[in-house]
Amino acid sequence: MNTIAADQPDPQWVLTLSCIDGPGIVHAISGAVVAAGGNIAESQQFASADTGRFFMRLQVEAVAQPETFETRFESAVSPVTQRYNMTWRLDRVGRPVRTLVLASTATHCVNDLLYRQRGGQLPIEVPLILSNHETVRDIAEFYGVPFEHRAIANPADRAAFEARVLEAVEEHDIELVVLARYMQILSPELCAALEGRAINIHHSFLPGFKGANPYKQAHQRGVKLIGATAHFVTTDLDEGPIIEQDVARVDHSYSPRELVQLGQDEEARVLRRAVNWFAENRVLVDGDRTIIFR
Amino acid sequence: MNTIAADQPDPQWVLTLSCIDGPGIVHAISGAVVAAGGNIAESQQFASADTGRFFMRLQVEAVAQPETFETRFESAVSPVTQRYNMTWRLDRVGRPVRTLVLASTATHCVNDLLYRQRGGQLPIEVPLILSNHETVRDIAEFYGVPFEHRAIANPADRAAFEARVLEAVEEHDIELVVLARYMQILSPELCAALEGRAINIHHSFLPGFKGANPYKQAHQRGVKLIGATAHFVTTDLDEGPIIEQDVARVDHSYSPRELVQLGQDEEARVLRRAVNWFAENRVLVDGDRTIIFR
Amino acid sequence: MNTIAADQPDPQWVLTLSCIDGPGIVHAISGAVVAAGGNIAESQQFASADTGRFFMRLQVEAVAQPETFETRFESAVSPVTQRYNMTWRLDRVGRPVRTLVLASTATHCVNDLLYRQRGGQLPIEVPLILSNHETVRDIAEFYGVPFEHRAIANPADRAAFEARVLEAVEEHDIELVVLARYMQILSPELCAALEGRAINIHHSFLPGFKGANPYKQAHQRGVKLIGATAHFVTTDLDEGPIIEQDVARVDHSYSPRELVQLGQDEEARVLRRAVNWFAENRVLVDGDRTIIFR
Amino acid sequence: MNTIAADQPDPQWVLTLSCIDGPGIVHAISGAVVAAGGNIAESQQFASADTGRFFMRLQVEAVAQPETFETRFESAVSPVTQRYNMTWRLDRVGRPVRTLVLASTATHCVNDLLYRQRGGQLPIEVPLILSNHETVRDIAEFYGVPFEHRAIANPADRAAFEARVLEAVEEHDIELVVLARYMQILSPELCAALEGRAINIHHSFLPGFKGANPYKQAHQRGVKLIGATAHFVTTDLDEGPIIEQDVARVDHSYSPRELVQLGQDEEARVLRRAVNWFAENRVLVDGDRTIIFR
Repeated sequence: MNTIAADQPDPQWVLTLSCIDGPGIVHAISGAVVAAGGNIAESQQFASADTGRFFMRLQVEAVAQPETFETRFESAVSPVTQRYNMTWRLDRVGRPVRTLVLASTATHCVNDLLYRQRGGQLPIEVPLILSNHETVRDIAEFYGVPFEHRAIANPADRAAFEARVLEAVEEHDIELVVLARYMQILSPELCAALEGRAINIHHSFLPGFKGANPYKQAHQRGVKLIGATAHFVTTDLDEGPIIEQDVARVDHSYSPRELVQLGQDEEARVLRRAVNWFAENRVLVDGDRTIIFR
Repeated sequence: MNTIAADQPDPQWVLTLSCIDGPGIVHAISGAVVAAGGNIAESQQFASADTGRFFMRLQVEAVAQPETFETRFESAVSPVTQRYNMTWRLDRVGRPVRTLVLASTATHCVNDLLYRQRGGQLPIEVPLILSNHETVRDIAEFYGVPFEHRAIANPADRAAFEARVLEAVEEHDIELVVLARYMQILSPELCAALEGRAINIHHSFLPGFKGANPYKQAHQRGVKLIGATAHFVTTDLDEGPIIEQDVARVDHSYSPRELVQLGQDEEARVLRRAVNWFAENRVLVDGDRTIIFR
Repeated sequence: MNTIAADQPDPQWVLTLSCIDGPGIVHAISGAVVAAGGNIAESQQFASADTGRFFMRLQVEAVAQPETFETRFESAVSPVTQRYNMTWRLDRVGRPVRTLVLASTATHCVNDLLYRQRGGQLPIEVPLILSNHETVRDIAEFYGVPFEHRAIANPADRAAFEARVLEAVEEHDIELVVLARYMQILSPELCAALEGRAINIHHSFLPGFKGANPYKQAHQRGVKLIGATAHFVTTDLDEGPIIEQDVARVDHSYSPRELVQLGQDEEARVLRRAVNWFAENRVLVDGDRTIIFR
Repeated sequence: MNTIAADQPDPQWVLTLSCIDGPGIVHAISGAVVAAGGNIAESQQFASADTGRFFMRLQVEAVAQPETFETRFESAVSPVTQRYNMTWRLDRVGRPVRTLVLASTATHCVNDLLYRQRGGQLPIEVPLILSNHETVRDIAEFYGVPFEHRAIANPADRAAFEARVLEAVEEHDIELVVLARYMQILSPELCAALEGRAINIHHSFLPGFKGANPYKQAHQRGVKLIGATAHFVTTDLDEGPIIEQDVARVDHSYSPRELVQLGQDEEARVLRRAVNWFAENRVLVDGDRTIIFR
């Protein structure tokens, strides 16, 4: 969580990496930390039997001279990342992630994210909310977040909306796009452009339902659990790598509308967790699935 | 649960009914209880907006002369059930339900059911376990339950197995057939013959997976929850009315084999609850869904 | 939930009652419903073995002439409630309950309640928030709820604050007082004055901890679950009848501050459910415990 | 879980250690792994802000010559463990832990442990069950586990029972003592002798209850959750470091006896997890709390 800074006042850095698995990786990486005068405060790793890849997340604190630590650490770790042909990323713990939020009419996810962002419980900053409806404008204004409305009435509008998304990503140097119940299907081009940095949330049921009005179908089939899934956006829209899932218990007495309400609570909770973990560099992708370093 | 007898020593009866909804039903039924000299100890009802049907479950205790209460109550309630064209059933609270268990190689569900049955926590009696494998024989023998093995190597074997199921249902006056991980597909004829009195258990995922080895697919897709669903058997095998569902949390570090183990724990828990509720006359069917009067 | 009106457009009434248990109660009550030309849409009852009391909640819809139904129903039910010496209450389904909110510095509970109230998910109206701090003022203003700040620096201030509470209860005909993390101990006099209509929320742990900073103690003892309990206020402040409880899973890596955050999420969820059930007349008190008719 | 051997056929070793935190530990340990020709398959660490101690769990597989790996690894790691003054332990992954089970009349925990042990889901072997009652004898015999009954009617009996425990620990080289609902209070001497290797299970409630018959108290107070806690035995019997906790939801309609049944299910689940994690060297003690490396 983003409160580490407050609990541990020393500045910290987070290193995430992945590479083909093999002997000596941890030793080499930890050697770079020692060489840079750092101390490993937190470390998690996973070797994927499916893909043969190794994944690691390291939180490192500077033992001395924190102001120049980042440069020293990058110098020390660079030969290691090259030797193992690593994909890697170094970040500052607690740094707010620049996040673009896309919305439609539903308010529950936007409200939850902004409430927590303001309260210092979610390390994101939101330079813009883009929506094809006006519904969340007053929430955005209350939380002091710029809001922009662009109606979508036809395919040309949608193309223009998507062009604005890409422009905003560029303009604000966006790191994460959150589809907070943005109810439009993204074009394959936009999905591809945002791969690995766009998170979507949708309801989930056992069994799954195809077609319109899934809550009504869930009611008709008498499901005993309703849930939500947060996942990365891919061109296969609701099938990207899963980041988080949760469910709530229901019974036969719930009307379709009550199912929707409870489902929205789950959506807000699940999306909040997924965004938080992403912002803390806890989410790594391993083929079609995610590694979550909690 | 089946411990009511112990907590409340007076004998009780349970009445379950359903009919087209309309005014006066509760008044008429409660009038019959009063007329028979009974007291309503527990009552639940539900009016289904989907089907327009009314459902009720009543536990009634005899205030005086319990030995003749059943006859008095049947006489009193009979005109009411006729007037409203009710489907109804009167049973003794705590009476063990005659249950036929079908099994294959997996032991977890059979073991859980028999352990609880012996401990007085599950109001069933099991005159026979039929299996196409020998695996659960020693468990059956430990719990003193007759076990019969019939191998299934070809379609003729399966037809013979199913004929034996129907024969056993007849012979032991079976009220409930539990498919405790019986891994054969039932013929449409058997499904039809057992409609409303056969419960199956299977794994559940969000999203659902088609085809072979669903746990491997769940692993590859990195699901965060795995679950189980107990439902009535219908000709559409895994799509009958859902009785109970539950899930357990997993993460990327679980191997397919560990997912199977955890999934089995969920299957045993969910099946146990479904069987218990059925045996206590708490499960009523409303079209494609169940009403569970807990 | 408060969406019944939307799902079922006909106006409905809710009757809650309790009395000494005995034969004939359901029959008498349902007779009054029939006599008034009503139909029972929902019914739940419970006979408490501990206190010998009977509890019932009935939702009734008018079959004809809904505008005069309430009068007819009251006339019909009145002899019954007198005969059985019932405590009873008749209310309109979906009517917002007049709720006074007391707050201090924490925002999470107030924010959650007001967000849901505005969204039509919580059938309350809030004529006033009283707080001994300014923290929730902007949230109150955003949601258009009157806010009043009264600092508490000494016992005299507290007495004045409590006098203002009682005055506001009178002035706005308050039905429910919610202590939304109001961190002051209430005087026995105020507790007594608000008995049965004031709900408090606090953290809960296994095992419980006495004394200051329970989250720190929970951290030091390495608890694996943290939770929250909503209960009625009694003179024994944290020991009133429990309305709702829930927990979240934690592990050794959570800092005390992270425990606080997660605990706040639980507090908001648990309080919201308790307030909702109270507002829907689903909470009845049976000695030291509650009956919740979900 | 103990299925790693099956999923990953190469033999693996698990190293657990703790020491005063400081720079260079991970680098030194991983250097030893490399020097011994090993590969880190799994690694978890935690730096305790409370005690200043560092904890680590490492699963290592031999890249070549596995038959001599253990010797090589011990030689390589030994200087490191000395330099940092580490408490450490090297074990074979999947090796069954020699476990002494103490029981009284309740069967649920013993049955659950033995069922899973036989099914290869719990890496323990049980050379002996000692009980002051005969109740679990037939379960022990079914699972082929030696059972010994010693009645406890007076303090002298208890002292003799405890002497037999210590003798059995010696005789069978016991690594873990499980109090599977052994309802006797252990003497301070026995607690001290078994410190860090005896696990107890008991019910847990919010709030906690003192004195006799806690389920009855829980019923009277109308708790909405009942749970169980597994913890290490210390001289402060129910206050040792917590290993695992879980809860189940209940409502006002549960009788005290039903609460007991549901509580037993929770006890069996929670104890099973705690024993499994201990047996897999996933439980480390940090002062009054545990680090669980899942």
